[in-house]
Amino acid sequence: MTRQELFELIKRKKSFLCVGLDSDLQKIPKHLLGSDDPVFEFNRQVIDATIEYTVAYKPNLAFYESRGLKGMHSLERTFKLLQSYGKEVFTIADAKRGDIGNTSTQYAKSVFDETSSGFSFDAVTVAPYMGEDSVKPFLDFPGKWAIVLALTSNKGAEDFQFFLSENGTPLFQQVLSRSHKWGSAENMMYVIGATRAEMLAEVRKIIPDHFLLVPGVGAQGGSLQEVAKYGLNSHCGLLVNASRSIIFASSDTEFAIKAGAEALAMQKEMEILLALYSLI
Amino acid sequence: MTRQELFELIKRKKSFLCVGLDSDLQKIPKHLLGSDDPVFEFNRQVIDATIEYTVAYKPNLAFYESRGLKGMHSLERTFKLLQSYGKEVFTIADAKRGDIGNTSTQYAKSVFDETSSGFSFDAVTVAPYMGEDSVKPFLDFPGKWAIVLALTSNKGAEDFQFFLSENGTPLFQQVLSRSHKWGSAENMMYVIGATRAEMLAEVRKIIPDHFLLVPGVGAQGGSLQEVAKYGLNSHCGLLVNASRSIIFASSDTEFAIKAGAEALAMQKEMEILLALYSLI
Repeated sequence: MTRQELFELIKRKKSFLCVGLDSDLQKIPKHLLGSDDPVFEFNRQVIDATIEYTVAYKPNLAFYESRGLKGMHSLERTFKLLQSYGKEVFTIADAKRGDIGNTSTQYAKSVFDETSSGFSFDAVTVAPYMGEDSVKPFLDFPGKWAIVLALTSNKGAEDFQFFLSENGTPLFQQVLSRSHKWGSAENMMYVIGATRAEMLAEVRKIIPDHFLLVPGVGAQGGSLQEVAKYGLNSHCGLLVNASRSIIFASSDTEFAIKAGAEALAMQKEMEILLALYSLI
Repeated sequence: MTRQELFELIKRKKSFLCVGLDSDLQKIPKHLLGSDDPVFEFNRQVIDATIEYTVAYKPNLAFYESRGLKGMHSLERTFKLLQSYGKEVFTIADAKRGDIGNTSTQYAKSVFDETSSGFSFDAVTVAPYMGEDSVKPFLDFPGKWAIVLALTSNKGAEDFQFFLSENGTPLFQQVLSRSHKWGSAENMMYVIGATRAEMLAEVRKIIPDHFLLVPGVGAQGGSLQEVAKYGLNSHCGLLVNASRSIIFASSDTEFAIKAGAEALAMQKEMEILLALYSLI
C-alpha cells in the first residue's frame, strides 16, 4: 500500500486507529477455548467488530510464536482473513526484527514474501541497533514498509534511547536523523511512544513527512489530543495503536461488542481531531 | 546448562566452536532437494559430521521463518535432534528478539518453554535497544541464557554502536556497563564481533567473567588468535561462531565431510589456544 492509499483509507474511515492483536491464549474469553483454533476465533470476532473503525491491524508475533507451530497456524489464518479485506486494511507484522544483511533479507521474506512464507504483510517493525545493513533489506520489497523503533513507550526506553551524545543529542534522534536517509517517507515509518508526546515536536523537526506508529495511548497514559497536536502532518502521518484496551475490553461472551465500542470511541475522537486539523 | 557445565563441555571437546545453522534452502546441496525435508536432512548431516568438534549450535531463526510453517517444522526437528545429545551441546536460538516486558515474556516462551512452543533452547540472542524491561523476561527462566547484542560484526555496527556520549564512551560500552547488572555471568552473555578484536580488551575491562559469543572469524576477516588473546578468561568465556565457512564448505555430495573437516581445523586451532592459555 502506498502512502497516498493509506491516507485515502484514513479519510474514508475517518480514523487512524491501529488495533494490536496481542492475542494471548491465557487472556481470551474462556468460552472460546473449546473451539478448534481459539486464538483465530478470537481475532476473527475482534476484527469483525472493529474493522469499520480501524485502518490497521498489528498482530504481535510473540503471542503466536510462543505457541509454536499451532500459534503460527493461528497467525496464518489471521493474516489470510485480513488479506481478504484488500485495501480496506493496512497490515503490520509487529516483530522487531533486525540482523546482518543476508539474515534481514530472510526476515523480510518471512513477513513479505507470500510464496516463500505464506505472509505478505504491508509492514514490519524493525530494531535499529545493528544499523543500515540490518534495515535496508526490508526496503528492497516494493510497496512494503519498514517501521523502525525510535522512541518506545516502555520504561526501558530510558536506558539507551536517551543516551546523550557529545553535542547533547539523544540516541533516538540520531536513529531518526541517520536512518531516514536509507529510504523515504514512502517506505519507512517510525515507532514513537505516546507516553512522551512532547517529544513529537522534536521528532517532526527531523522527519516532517513520515508516518509514525504510536503505541502507549490509553492504558499506558498517553493523550490522543497531545499526539495529534504534535504529530499530525499533511497526510495524517499517524497510526495510533491500541491493543489490550480494545481486544481485552471484556472477557465475557460480549467481548467483541465491547471491543467494537472501544474502537468506535477512539474513532470518534480521531474524527474530531482530523476535522479540527482540516484533514477531512 | 550452567556456566560451569559449559566450561566442562569446552574442556571435554577441547573446543569453543559454535556452528551457525544458517541453512538457506537456496544454498544447500542440490541432491538433498528431493528429500522430504531438505533443510532438516542438511542440518542432520552437518551436525553428525561436526558434533565431535563443536560445543554449540546456533540455528538462525530467520532462515526457518522465511519458509513459513514448513521452515518452522524443519527447525523443530533440528531442535529435537540437538536436544537428543543432552549436555553434549549448548543450543542457541539466534533470534535477536526484544520488546516491551509482556511481549518479551512471550518471546522467551517461544524459545525456552517446550510445553508451550515445542522449543527449549539453552540461550537466545536479544537486542538491547528497548532497555531493561525488554531483556529481563528472558532472565526469568532458570538455567537459560540471554545473549545481548553489544558490538556486532557487520558494517552497520558503526551507525549507532559507536555513537559517542558526552564523556567519549561509545554506546556499546554503555550497553555492557548498564545491562550486565540486570543478570549475572551465569545467565547473560554478549555478542562481540571478531572483526573488532582489539575492542575485546575494552570489553573485558567491563565484563571480565561473562561468556562472549563471537561472530566474524574467518569469512568476515576476524582472527581467532586475536580473539583468544583478548577474550579468553578463567572459564574460557568464548564461543566463536562460524556459519557459512563450515556448513557451505562444499555444495556437492561430500558437503558433510567438508563441513566436518572445517570444524576439525577450527577445533585444532582452539585446542592449541586453550592449552597455550592453560585452560586444558
